[in-house]
Amino acid sequence: MSPQLLTPTPNAYSAILGTGSFRPDVVVTNDDVCQWIDSSDEWIRQRTGIITRHRADANTSVLDMAQGAAQAALEDAGISAAQLDTVIVATVTFPHATPSAAAALADRLGATPAPAYDISAACAGYCYAIAQADALVRSGLAQHVLVVGVEKLSDYIDNTERTISFLLGDGAGAVIVGASPVPGISPSVWGSDGSKWNAISMTHSQLELRDSLLGATELLESAVDEPLEELANPWPTLRQDGQTVFRWAVWEMAKMAREALAEAGVKAEDLAAFIPHQANMRIIDELAKQLKLPDTVLVARDIAENGNTSAASIPMAMDRMRKAHPQLSGKFALQIGFGAGLVFGAQVVLLP
Amino acid sequence: MSPQLLTPTPNAYSAILGTGSFRPDVVVTNDDVCQWIDSSDEWIRQRTGIITRHRADANTSVLDMAQGAAQAALEDAGISAAQLDTVIVATVTFPHATPSAAAALADRLGATPAPAYDISAACAGYCYAIAQADALVRSGLAQHVLVVGVEKLSDYIDNTERTISFLLGDGAGAVIVGASPVPGISPSVWGSDGSKWNAISMTHSQLELRDSLLGATELLESAVDEPLEELANPWPTLRQDGQTVFRWAVWEMAKMAREALAEAGVKAEDLAAFIPHQANMRIIDELAKQLKLPDTVLVARDIAENGNTSAASIPMAMDRMRKAHPQLSGKFALQIGFGAGLVFGAQVVLLP
Repeated sequence: MSPQLLTPTPNAYSAILGTGSFRPDVVVTNDDVCQWIDSSDEWIRQRTGIITRHRADANTSVLDMAQGAAQAALEDAGISAAQLDTVIVATVTFPHATPSAAAALADRLGATPAPAYDISAACAGYCYAIAQADALVRSGLAQHVLVVGVEKLSDYIDNTERTISFLLGDGAGAVIVGASPVPGISPSVWGSDGSKWNAISMTHSQLELRDSLLGATELLESAVDEPLEELANPWPTLRQDGQTVFRWAVWEMAKMAREALAEAGVKAEDLAAFIPHQANMRIIDELAKQLKLPDTVLVARDIAENGNTSAASIPMAMDRMRKAHPQLSGKFALQIGFGAGLVFGAQVVLLP
Repeated sequence: MSPQLLTPTPNAYSAILGTGSFRPDVVVTNDDVCQWIDSSDEWIRQRTGIITRHRADANTSVLDMAQGAAQAALEDAGISAAQLDTVIVATVTFPHATPSAAAALADRLGATPAPAYDISAACAGYCYAIAQADALVRSGLAQHVLVVGVEKLSDYIDNTERTISFLLGDGAGAVIVGASPVPGISPSVWGSDGSKWNAISMTHSQLELRDSLLGATELLESAVDEPLEELANPWPTLRQDGQTVFRWAVWEMAKMAREALAEAGVKAEDLAAFIPHQANMRIIDELAKQLKLPDTVLVARDIAENGNTSAASIPMAMDRMRKAHPQLSGKFALQIGFGAGLVFGAQVVLLP
């Protein structure tokens, strides 16, 4: 007769135990942006709320930024890298198809042999990873999960492109999720709408790049004089349908944020902070208004200085807010990420 | 006073409820391979056990293969796409930095608004995704998770390269994980060793490709005569240190497989099947020998026909084995994935 499989011992609850962030050095102003596109500092501030974005120089990689944020989060949580038993990196800008950034990061931190993987969920990547970390800890598969949101978007933009490139910055944010005597992460409200897969995307597939390379090589070999056209903008970069994304973000995400509050059993007036993905100040303002947040709720507006850093934006904003307002410790924050897919994820979390 | 956050109601156990696979049409023989590298059918069979690999034509994408496998798995499990509440795609060959393959797949299947994300864990991707699916179901965050392992490796190889390209095939395998009255997935034994990050990797970074494009364009613009060197093999492709990987796979993975059995509370003689990642027949044979599997244990040897399909190999092999041997239903299989990272994952599962 067969035995029954053993299963891990669950933990009752999970919570965020610490946070960290890394902001790269290069500051790109709106005046800098206006060298590349026909715009003005005033127009950019009014339409997006962005004053500067931080970008990484050529010597600062996705891994460097992830490591900086992760080490700060470990220190904040008061645990060692050796205590980590899962490393999740949410990113869409690691420039290798394989292996993962997470495996290299685990090695740099001293977290080996922790399981380590990257996830692709764009600007919802951090909230998706929090859902996974919560599940891994409560199911008993992990005790301490490192979640990193990191992007070097400046490698995947075209500065002369007008729909999204000027919004984007680089950076990393990290949190440690572990077991908790009280519930610290509410049921994740997360989902996707792939019917809007093209609303935010790359200009073209990597395979088109590959084929254009082959085409260009053949043209060169056949001594045709004008291979330049084949090589025009072959590197895929980000673009979006701004209107589609704006409407979806404002209307659908307000609904999802309310659903996250309902699933958490929390009312707007129970919140101490609202930390949405930093996509655009107008989206942030509109969400805060629709959620009827009392004036006592601190709203993350990290975008003014950092631009949109995709998967990194929420943990970066959370880390800054906690350091500036220590009284938030033990209070509730509503976090919501949303982006290319389209995908979204939201939770109420107890701030460490 | 603040309320206490609500949390999801856990499920006691999870299990695999159904499987499906998709094998693309183009059959590449060892004689075909010997057009590109100096080798022989006999040598390839002796050293790798591979007789053919299936590859996808230009019109068959990662998404097409994923969809085929997923629909078969849904049918096998007897659930509709609308019942899915998570879609996980393990792949390293989706040719877009963002959005994810999973969001597009969920839309094609009719699984929207299920959360959907891709993971990067190379040949361990399927076992990593099973760990996540198990955690999501047992923690109560999901009731039905679709896990797909899919690769179109033929887009990321150089047929004239000798370390790995001739081993690789394309394909997709899928399973549905859901709640179960009895334990169907043992505690995942998973991990990474990023100190061997370079043992299996791309020839170079996408950023080197980008920079070589810029260099080539400048050379063309400056009317230099020989830009061809800049364009030589600019497309990153896979390569490995075969000896390093072989030793690690045989020695370390035998240990991890034994640890998975111990964590499951299962002995080798309790197994009905052994379904390792299909990397190389010699690794499969060596693992089976070291685990002292009785002759009654069926060993997956899908590699002979399909080659190494990375994240797809285990679910493809499991699906074929179940269809050929219906008596396996309700019996235990040991599965173990391992690959670029380096990363590994193993579980004992109850076959549906």
